[in-house]
Amino acid sequence: MGNEEKIATIIRDWTRAIENRDREGILAKHADDLLMIDFPNTVHGIAAYAKTWDFFDQSRRGEVVFRPSNLKVTAGDHVAFAHCDIHCEGTTAGPIDLRLTTGLVKRGGEWIVTHEHHSMPTENETLIGPDVRG
Amino acid sequence: MGNEEKIATIIRDWTRAIENRDREGILAKHADDLLMIDFPNTVHGIAAYAKTWDFFDQSRRGEVVFRPSNLKVTAGDHVAFAHCDIHCEGTTAGPIDLRLTTGLVKRGGEWIVTHEHHSMPTENETLIGPDVRG
Repeated sequence: MGNEEKIATIIRDWTRAIENRDREGILAKHADDLLMIDFPNTVHGIAAYAKTWDFFDQSRRGEVVFRPSNLKVTAGDHVAFAHCDIHCEGTTAGPIDLRLTTGLVKRGGEWIVTHEHHSMPTENETLIGPDVRG
Repeated sequence: MGNEEKIATIIRDWTRAIENRDREGILAKHADDLLMIDFPNTVHGIAAYAKTWDFFDQSRRGEVVFRPSNLKVTAGDHVAFAHCDIHCEGTTAGPIDLRLTTGLVKRGGEWIVTHEHHSMPTENETLIGPDVRG
């Protein structure tokens, strides 16, 4: 399996673990020192990262869908990044579409996630005044 | 100059070009086929990316500050990613703090940006109901 395919598998397995409320699977490929840019703020380290999934679990309302699309992986021998869109349903937030960028490094021969950037698209008004957006 | 330092310089030069309204400098190290996750939506290719800076220029109200902090670069020989926070002032949006993740590849011996993910922190309420956030 090439590096791109290995990383795509890591990301797909992670989304499936989220759907299945499988905390061990969610954390399996994440570095102790990871930096996660979450919706509301930035989170350092695996303990703080795990805590964001406590919040997520508390927001579950029935079956959760966490489905990646447009996954694109760019991998070197030891550093890689990936992007995908994710459709999420089944939480108190209702159906949402989010954007994910993941940064990975190879440590001890295994790819692990050291960076995750999750975001939601903003309203146009948030960036610049409605007067300048057509 | 090592890869990390080269990439840090690319990102700092880019922020300075934004402050100086130097479009050539803004686009100098960006790939024709880049994918940018902008606040409101996702943008493909350098022409669409340039257009987002047209919007930004129209939103300028005096001197613009676009100041990176907490810059961290993770670089291999041919693939790298970087993260920083950016404080922006001087647009119709008022002072804002945004988060940036950049993905780069080495092509023809030069590092270029193929991926940019810009986001704003959301309100807690946007992600999950206030009932579950402490």
